[in-house]
Amino acid sequence: MVGPGPLGVTARDTWLELPEDTGFGIANLPLGVFSTAGRPPRTGIAIGRHVLDLGGLTGDPVHSTGSLNAFMALGPGAWRGLREQVTDRLTDERYRARIEPHLIPRAGVRLHLPIAVADYVDFYSSEQHAVNVGRIFRPGSPPLTPNWKHLPIGYHGRAGTVDVSGTPVLRPCGQREGPDGEPIFGPSTRLDFEAELGFVVGAPSEPGRPVPVGAFPDHVFGVCLLNDWSARDLQAWEYVPLGPFLGKSFRTSISPWVVPLAALEEARVRPPVRDPRPLPYLRDDEDPWGLDITLEVRLGGETVSRPPAAGLYWTAAQQLAHLTVNGANLRTGDLYGSGTVSGPERNQRGSLLELSWGGTDPLTLADGSARTFLEDGDVVTLTASAPGPGGTRVGFGEVTGQVLPARCCQ
Amino acid sequence: MVGPGPLGVTARDTWLELPEDTGFGIANLPLGVFSTAGRPPRTGIAIGRHVLDLGGLTGDPVHSTGSLNAFMALGPGAWRGLREQVTDRLTDERYRARIEPHLIPRAGVRLHLPIAVADYVDFYSSEQHAVNVGRIFRPGSPPLTPNWKHLPIGYHGRAGTVDVSGTPVLRPCGQREGPDGEPIFGPSTRLDFEAELGFVVGAPSEPGRPVPVGAFPDHVFGVCLLNDWSARDLQAWEYVPLGPFLGKSFRTSISPWVVPLAALEEARVRPPVRDPRPLPYLRDDEDPWGLDITLEVRLGGETVSRPPAAGLYWTAAQQLAHLTVNGANLRTGDLYGSGTVSGPERNQRGSLLELSWGGTDPLTLADGSARTFLEDGDVVTLTASAPGPGGTRVGFGEVTGQVLPARCCQ
Repeated sequence: MVGPGPLGVTARDTWLELPEDTGFGIANLPLGVFSTAGRPPRTGIAIGRHVLDLGGLTGDPVHSTGSLNAFMALGPGAWRGLREQVTDRLTDERYRARIEPHLIPRAGVRLHLPIAVADYVDFYSSEQHAVNVGRIFRPGSPPLTPNWKHLPIGYHGRAGTVDVSGTPVLRPCGQREGPDGEPIFGPSTRLDFEAELGFVVGAPSEPGRPVPVGAFPDHVFGVCLLNDWSARDLQAWEYVPLGPFLGKSFRTSISPWVVPLAALEEARVRPPVRDPRPLPYLRDDEDPWGLDITLEVRLGGETVSRPPAAGLYWTAAQQLAHLTVNGANLRTGDLYGSGTVSGPERNQRGSLLELSWGGTDPLTLADGSARTFLEDGDVVTLTASAPGPGGTRVGFGEVTGQVLPARCCQ
Repeated sequence: MVGPGPLGVTARDTWLELPEDTGFGIANLPLGVFSTAGRPPRTGIAIGRHVLDLGGLTGDPVHSTGSLNAFMALGPGAWRGLREQVTDRLTDERYRARIEPHLIPRAGVRLHLPIAVADYVDFYSSEQHAVNVGRIFRPGSPPLTPNWKHLPIGYHGRAGTVDVSGTPVLRPCGQREGPDGEPIFGPSTRLDFEAELGFVVGAPSEPGRPVPVGAFPDHVFGVCLLNDWSARDLQAWEYVPLGPFLGKSFRTSISPWVVPLAALEEARVRPPVRDPRPLPYLRDDEDPWGLDITLEVRLGGETVSRPPAAGLYWTAAQQLAHLTVNGANLRTGDLYGSGTVSGPERNQRGSLLELSWGGTDPLTLADGSARTFLEDGDVVTLTASAPGPGGTRVGFGEVTGQVLPARCCQ
């Protein structure tokens, strides 16, 4: 899809000089929280090589709280209003003198966790990923459990260990199953990444009032990148019968910039055909929210995978409808992950578990080294890109993290 | 155990007239958040028939934030200091005139959710409960999974739907498996309670620094009652492979009073013998934290069970050590449940799932009616009692909730 977006602007309309290939063009306007030396964190918008300092520009205390929550809680009207106002200021040359003092080079700012995470849920909505994991973890059984095509499977993760890109990832310690079926304690030997999208809830909902599929944009403010670091050996030993716990709870990393849903209109695509047809509360035929976002996974600088989110079986709108259908309410700052994004090709798999097929088929890197799982010192970086208006691209920045050696005390 | 507790006081030492059988004696001093007409919520201590208004008495803003979090975050030194000071004021007749204006009849106050819940984790640490559930849910398989005696199994639940006693429980809607293996959508037909203890984290910990078993009282402020309402039909259909989700996330209820760990010294008992011997990070031989707390479950006013927490296989100190052994940090306001408490006798089972053996053996109530699972209008109330100093009892107040009809919109 090309042509002007819903706001009728293209990357060329701003008076600000933008790098040719920027993912942070005038039609993106992702929000984040940043700080500069000696000043407290405040809200900003990434534009080209700059951050527009909303705290400084507007003087509105809602942009000086150190997280996006207060602004997100104002709801979709306020989100639209800010977007229109900022678009206006950055496209009308007359505002230039007033705006320029509040444009700060991105290279000099520190980026913070953009949201105060309320509840964190992780879904499992890539059919290819679920099939791969089923084959690796439960060989001999049907790879998909009987419920998989009837509901977006998900579980609650640990909100308190979600942190921003750049936070080091300490290799976790824990129990894994030894060769004799008895547990062994020590550093995880099968540390992995999971390439995901994260969806950020801005506007809360009432207890007992499910959010229908169509109300997705009334509640979800935007999208970030999410790496759900996973210790496969801890997970395999602990996860029956109550699901993943310590194998996931040590760290989840998200990108510092939250791309507003409004920036992703051009990226909307029809999701795969769902067969069997979902129950009515999960039907999205009239207003589907598939998103043509292509992720990229770099391991030590080398691209090892390009997982395509357009192929996700369950969309984020369906995930939200499912999450609330039992009457559970949403809070500002709720975060939910798409689940690992994997495509049908080997170089589209979103985890090392899949890329090395459970460690049996190591991945060879350009420097000649091989990887089954992550080694101490490894740096994993996720980026992503989606179509924007007028042939532009919408970028998501990155979420990166380096694995540090375990500190087990036993 | 009888005799004076660690503070050397008994129920008779206060100048305040206490009901003979109060669970809120001078050696308990549980903290909660209350309000009176036209005034904002503040921190109080339950004593006999009264609430001691800490916000009003001390003027300290830490007691006027509407949750215990700010005070709990000050750590064990502050917890001890407050306890000593309040004990002093309530036992020394000379303070009477100064204190009495801040004693408010409990009957006239509104009680609020005492903590801002950070992360909520629920464990599964009663062997009898796990065996019962295994037999009911997975007949033909060994009732305990191979990991059960090696680690306290747990999972993260939804923090945003934890609310205080008295909050109505709307029957949840969702998917359950139909007779042909296809899902049916509708109100849960197998709604249940789970009688548990809740442990409240006061002092946070650092990422990457596991909390050893012995550091339990440095981080956990106190204990409340917890009802982990559960929709068994939703749970049974959804929980493979990632654990409980919508079957639990609609509501969790806790009691308004948090009993400080310091009030439970007389209740400490040795937990059951663990065989096989746990891994070193879970060993507690020198300083075990079994707690002789007996719960009571009332259904429509009739006592249907008295689950004994003293028999829990894994203690709250072991649960905390396990929760953090992978490097996950604690935050003030983290809440974790013991898991359903069930004893070996039928009238010690902590859920209707067990009391009615999966619905096959209905429970007959005094009015002649029978229950397999909860019906609309049912009121479930948990109370508990533990030994205190000098033959007194430490009470926990209650957590109660009434089931209201579902509001499915499909």
